[in-house]
Amino acid sequence: MEIKVLSRKDLISILELPDVIEGVEAVYRAKARGQVAAWPLVEHRFETGALMDIRSGGAFGEVAIHGAKLLNNFPENAEKGLPVFTGVLMAFDSKTGMPIGVMDASYITSLRTGAAAAVGAAALARPDSETLLLVGAGLQSIYLLGASILKLPGITKVIVADPYAPENAFRYVESIEKRLKEELHIDCGHVAFRACDDLKKSVEVSDVILTVTRSTKPLIMKDWVRPGTHLSCIGADMTGKEEIDPQLFTVARAFADDAKQCCAVGEMEIPARMGLISPDTVTGEIGQVLIGEVPGRVSADDITIFDATGLAALDLVTAKTAVESARKKQLGTTAEI
Amino acid sequence: MEIKVLSRKDLISILELPDVIEGVEAVYRAKARGQVAAWPLVEHRFETGALMDIRSGGAFGEVAIHGAKLLNNFPENAEKGLPVFTGVLMAFDSKTGMPIGVMDASYITSLRTGAAAAVGAAALARPDSETLLLVGAGLQSIYLLGASILKLPGITKVIVADPYAPENAFRYVESIEKRLKEELHIDCGHVAFRACDDLKKSVEVSDVILTVTRSTKPLIMKDWVRPGTHLSCIGADMTGKEEIDPQLFTVARAFADDAKQCCAVGEMEIPARMGLISPDTVTGEIGQVLIGEVPGRVSADDITIFDATGLAALDLVTAKTAVESARKKQLGTTAEI
Repeated sequence: MEIKVLSRKDLISILELPDVIEGVEAVYRAKARGQVAAWPLVEHRFETGALMDIRSGGAFGEVAIHGAKLLNNFPENAEKGLPVFTGVLMAFDSKTGMPIGVMDASYITSLRTGAAAAVGAAALARPDSETLLLVGAGLQSIYLLGASILKLPGITKVIVADPYAPENAFRYVESIEKRLKEELHIDCGHVAFRACDDLKKSVEVSDVILTVTRSTKPLIMKDWVRPGTHLSCIGADMTGKEEIDPQLFTVARAFADDAKQCCAVGEMEIPARMGLISPDTVTGEIGQVLIGEVPGRVSADDITIFDATGLAALDLVTAKTAVESARKKQLGTTAEI
Repeated sequence: MEIKVLSRKDLISILELPDVIEGVEAVYRAKARGQVAAWPLVEHRFETGALMDIRSGGAFGEVAIHGAKLLNNFPENAEKGLPVFTGVLMAFDSKTGMPIGVMDASYITSLRTGAAAAVGAAALARPDSETLLLVGAGLQSIYLLGASILKLPGITKVIVADPYAPENAFRYVESIEKRLKEELHIDCGHVAFRACDDLKKSVEVSDVILTVTRSTKPLIMKDWVRPGTHLSCIGADMTGKEEIDPQLFTVARAFADDAKQCCAVGEMEIPARMGLISPDTVTGEIGQVLIGEVPGRVSADDITIFDATGLAALDLVTAKTAVESARKKQLGTTAEI
């Protein structure tokens, strides 16, 4: 059996964001058709405090992929000059069980997360959206931004906010056009970037808001959000994390990547604990919108929310895209296993 | 990060049974010291009836390894000319979380299972054991036999029984000396092999019995087993499987690789359901014998049983042995990940 082994460096040169977006959409559609599985999470805390988790699952039907991703978080590595986060993903053809590839998991996770935010925004934002507010200027943010610019061609103004270090947003906007071009091959000549100096005022003028912070309290209040706004909330992916006012869920059409998971560990967790939302009252899953089973935005005045907590199938479909592309481009290591 | 990628073919040329045995013993000792983890099993049945499972865990302390093994069982592959069983294992250094290797899981599983049977036999059989009965002549059996011949140098007579196809045992003994030499580099000039023509009579003259069949009912009855006999039971590894008379557990000193797991899915499962044994009344775990915490055989007349159901840590320690050896011998594929 021949597999591809792909390093982070390989993946950076192999994966193109438009292909990743296509894969993410295919998985969301498959999920709405009952063809996506997320198998039980395996977690372990080492005596040293280091963490390990294994996320596994698959997308069947057309996508036809299954596998597992093992992530390590060893904070003590910093002192040893080793990476704190390491992760390996293994992917199998779910029609035959044959292994197809093994690869670094970090870049895959970053790209598919960015793509997810953008797919939600494209499905739910007003088609005439012009102003996008990015809340969070960390390592993950460029992928959300790049994918959203690709999926929302009407966006001509981008405001970047860093709630933890506002000055960081100013440095960020100076280099982001060049970085989007060099790192993701996205041309943003038509987009004006500026740093946020007042989050409330920025929210008030935005059509699309992407949140990707480590916040554990609301950064964006309900009263700041004007009718017609869309929010893709990405930062909250474990209990206790929260980026937007829970009261927003009382007025918004709220969509999940996975309704149960979002209400357990996503942006919907705290609203769910407050009784404002539940897996049964979520407007729908994003895949249902993509296949036309549940209407997304119904009027130009709707506030829409997309909460994405991640699915192993998103990593795996991206891994499949990477392996196919690596084969075509003859990149990465080919190994017998 | 650099890892080794090892195919089944690589592993066959890299792994030596004595090193695998050493690793298995190290894991059993670590288990007795509370340094082995088996994380929750993940299982999935595909719509086609194909099966997938993920076993994960680690051995910490000196062994310092963790990871996961994903196995697929796609019966419909036979028609497609593809392997029915595929499996990939990924191993990480549990002191740093750094990946060390990715490899085919099948040969690793076979070798460590053979080693386990032998480690139990060496710890529990009478030191003057001369006659070994191998019950089961399938693909797995050569690894049990080879490892046991290595660990029990007093064995000079081997009887081979195939309860499903008795004539198969006759063919088996004709070639086994040559196969042990060629496939496992074990010299058996001092051993006389013969096929079993009467299982009861063979049991009655044996000092050590290894069972490795797919049986779901007892093959070996209590009254056939003479005092002083040791049995290593390997075949029963899921509910419903059974190779020896449950009543043997009323007279034997019975050891497990993992007491709870053996009482749930091992040879001890049915005796446990009959109330003859429980995790609390198992004499001990094999690791406790190896570190001297629980006596194994107390008298030359004891009947001893070792029930091995497998631990992910055994695969992982074998994977570590393989990677270290592959590095030394410059074999396998070296890949950036």
